Amino acid sequence: MSEDERAIRALIDTWMAASRNGDVQTVLGLMSDDAVFMVPGREPFGKAAFAAQSQAMKDVKIEGKAEIRELKVLDDWAWLRSHLSIAVTQPDGAVARKSGYVLTILRKEKGRWQLARDANLLT
Amino acid sequence: MSEDERAIRALIDTWMAASRNGDVQTVLGLMSDDAVFMVPGREPFGKAAFAAQSQAMKDVKIEGKAEIRELKVLDDWAWLRSHLSIAVTQPDGAVARKSGYVLTILRKEKGRWQLARDANLLT
Repeated sequence: MSEDERAIRALIDTWMAASRNGDVQTVLGLMSDDAVFMVPGREPFGKAAFAAQSQAMKDVKIEGKAEIRELKVLDDWAWLRSHLSIAVTQPDGAVARKSGYVLTILRKEKGRWQLARDANLLT
Repeated sequence: MSEDERAIRALIDTWMAASRNGDVQTVLGLMSDDAVFMVPGREPFGKAAFAAQSQAMKDVKIEGKAEIRELKVLDDWAWLRSHLSIAVTQPDGAVARKSGYVLTILRKEKGRWQLARDANLLT
């Protein structure tokens, strides 16, 4: 496994752990400033909207598991195909589960990998 | 606009025109043999399943319009973010419309660009 591949796998692990812990600042630090998120049924959104949404969901517990199915490093860019399972627990204890595939584009800037584009097909 | 960018835009135009004309062979020729398609709510599928699905829909008219929002060429790979609007007309004249965003990975092999991975968020 190349150093870049290891760094990208570590980024995904850090992202999932930070999400679980409600550590929005860490998650925001793992994406580029121009990151674009795509989900079904709404317009793509960027880092500021991601932050606002995370803030609005701060009392919600998100436990996710990401399995990397393919990872291709292309110099300072990479793409990643993963399967994601998420359990979202509301403050009242109600749990919603979602799973599906994600196609992600990453970029290395100043030696650090960051998430740049993300198409999330979870249903 | 670079030659690669022009070639990729031409590929998308050819894909949309061939889909409209029910020309499945042309569409299949625009994807790599290991292409993977992702859509919400089902497992990813490859070229053979794409072909079977197109064959099953041969009496259905598909009119689509793709707008490229971002295109980044990375040597022999590229990624593309587009907005797609589709009208599917059944033999009885019933029309279903779908639209949404698509994140696509392309690869250049033997000088020809081909679609390699596709995450389609249409709803």
